[in-house]
Amino acid sequence: MMKAVQWHDTHITILNQQALPHKTEYLELKNIEDVWDAIVTLKVRGAPAIGMTAAYGLALAAKLYETDDLATFHTKLKRDRDYLASSRPTAVNLFWALDRLMKSVVNATSVNEAKTSLIHEAICIQIEDEDVCRRIGEYALSLFQDGDRIMTICNAGAIATARYGTALAPFHLAKEKGITLHAYACETRPVLQGARLTAWELSEAGVDVTLITDNMAAQTMKAKHISAVIVGADRIAANGDTANKIGTFGLAILAKAFNIPFYVAAPLSTIDLQTKTGDDIPIEERAKEEVTHIGGVRIAPDVNVYNPAFDVTPHELITGIITEKGIVFGDYETKLPTLFEEVFA
Amino acid sequence: MMKAVQWHDTHITILNQQALPHKTEYLELKNIEDVWDAIVTLKVRGAPAIGMTAAYGLALAAKLYETDDLATFHTKLKRDRDYLASSRPTAVNLFWALDRLMKSVVNATSVNEAKTSLIHEAICIQIEDEDVCRRIGEYALSLFQDGDRIMTICNAGAIATARYGTALAPFHLAKEKGITLHAYACETRPVLQGARLTAWELSEAGVDVTLITDNMAAQTMKAKHISAVIVGADRIAANGDTANKIGTFGLAILAKAFNIPFYVAAPLSTIDLQTKTGDDIPIEERAKEEVTHIGGVRIAPDVNVYNPAFDVTPHELITGIITEKGIVFGDYETKLPTLFEEVFA
Repeated sequence: MMKAVQWHDTHITILNQQALPHKTEYLELKNIEDVWDAIVTLKVRGAPAIGMTAAYGLALAAKLYETDDLATFHTKLKRDRDYLASSRPTAVNLFWALDRLMKSVVNATSVNEAKTSLIHEAICIQIEDEDVCRRIGEYALSLFQDGDRIMTICNAGAIATARYGTALAPFHLAKEKGITLHAYACETRPVLQGARLTAWELSEAGVDVTLITDNMAAQTMKAKHISAVIVGADRIAANGDTANKIGTFGLAILAKAFNIPFYVAAPLSTIDLQTKTGDDIPIEERAKEEVTHIGGVRIAPDVNVYNPAFDVTPHELITGIITEKGIVFGDYETKLPTLFEEVFA
Repeated sequence: MMKAVQWHDTHITILNQQALPHKTEYLELKNIEDVWDAIVTLKVRGAPAIGMTAAYGLALAAKLYETDDLATFHTKLKRDRDYLASSRPTAVNLFWALDRLMKSVVNATSVNEAKTSLIHEAICIQIEDEDVCRRIGEYALSLFQDGDRIMTICNAGAIATARYGTALAPFHLAKEKGITLHAYACETRPVLQGARLTAWELSEAGVDVTLITDNMAAQTMKAKHISAVIVGADRIAANGDTANKIGTFGLAILAKAFNIPFYVAAPLSTIDLQTKTGDDIPIEERAKEEVTHIGGVRIAPDVNVYNPAFDVTPHELITGIITEKGIVFGDYETKLPTLFEEVFA
């Protein structure tokens, strides 16, 4: 089974996503420097996978502290927490995971207890993420039928999470259950996550996957009778507007034109009720070289480039938002907050 | 001034489009083998440019025949016509140009007269194509205003024709007239004609051009307030349905969603009244390696690929078809045939 991150007590194993699709390589991270480097050099990617790797990294570092003094332990832990947090300063999930580990040892009465608590907490993060992804996959699968042809973009996949992924979870679960889903992966320029990662992940898992370039989406929807589109999310605003990889917005417009349902699959942690609408989400622009070069080779002259990293799909184009707590169909402003209510509140 | 093909009496000069955008290289074709090779190896591309090159190639070959006997001349000419026709057997414009040259010498009374007629006819083809492109550009320009931001795909440009191009003609003419048009070029995967050729051609001509990847079209229309989309055509059916480079259909759907006019710019020779609708146009599929490799380097695993070379934009998404005889706005089935009527018929 494909695992992006695995704890082995003396080390952490990660799938080197920088080597994909050319080489399936698992790396052993044996100390905190290895972990920091793996995150900085993008060998591990995807918010949940980065969070898990950092959590295991902190637990691994603490395991090696040679002290029985709790105060010394906490000093070292704080220093190593800050070091790992510096590996990817924009990754919210990284801070969330590290801070969760820091809280787990606040009441520890011994260094040994603290070391065990850190490992336990890191494992919990991974187990919970796998559970979240499995639930998202089950809900998503309830929307599809055997033989459906489903289009996706980027890689909201198993290798970005503990297991299964979000948008790709129904494909993995269908495979487990003997249901056939046909995946159509948009290559996702400029960084080609669809071609490099999704096509690899799904074909490795035995899922039938067809790769297309992004500009083939309309023709593919028509000629291959696409049943649905499913995508992940970077951030979902309170009204359902969804920021995701560049190209998502265009797919949503095409889906509507072809009367095909368009689904967003994402954990509750992606929903930000403090962000009222998509207009409040600034669009990050990245370096022009991502567009003018591929694999270090220039493919275009040195002209102006517009390179937005993501776009915002307005809520009215989204048929449903699939979370680990269920699926919300429209009227997001009213319904999304209810997902956060405790069952026995 | 940028010229894809130029006649120089002792040789033909062509712009080597295979070397773009890395190198601006003009090649001298000195004999028929050079011409055949330039077409086969795609150093010259674009239906009109291929036709012109072949026409000049046949004229150049004939110029070198050492005979005064007309029968011998015709035998050699037929042999060389067939040789050049074999360089790109699917290029309709290639046959059209060669056959036009063959007809021009049917009534020749001497070898010298025939040689002169061939050169004259080849020059006429180029002059006529330049005139067609200029007229298309003038009509297109009448639809735009100073400061407009216009999106295009592929390369329906000067380097594919005698001059100006079709979809790119208004940009070149605007530049000549001191009108500012901002071009947004979709890179046009898989073969990247937009990135390699359009971005190069427009920036060389001093036109303000911004390159985007194909999946950025929706976000760019929104964020950059795109005024219009203009594209070329491979074939236009009697009802206005238009086959063009893959991705055109998707742009047309996006343009409609943003209420942006969508124009097709093409010469009458592209309109095929024998083809009733777009459903009668088979979609050519090309090799999977075009998608899985870029510049010979693998970017995706060896999975299934769907690689349609073009798509068909239904006529109801086309605001207007711009030809050298004027612009047709809707009701194509009735209006397109009138373009072919002689003024004094």
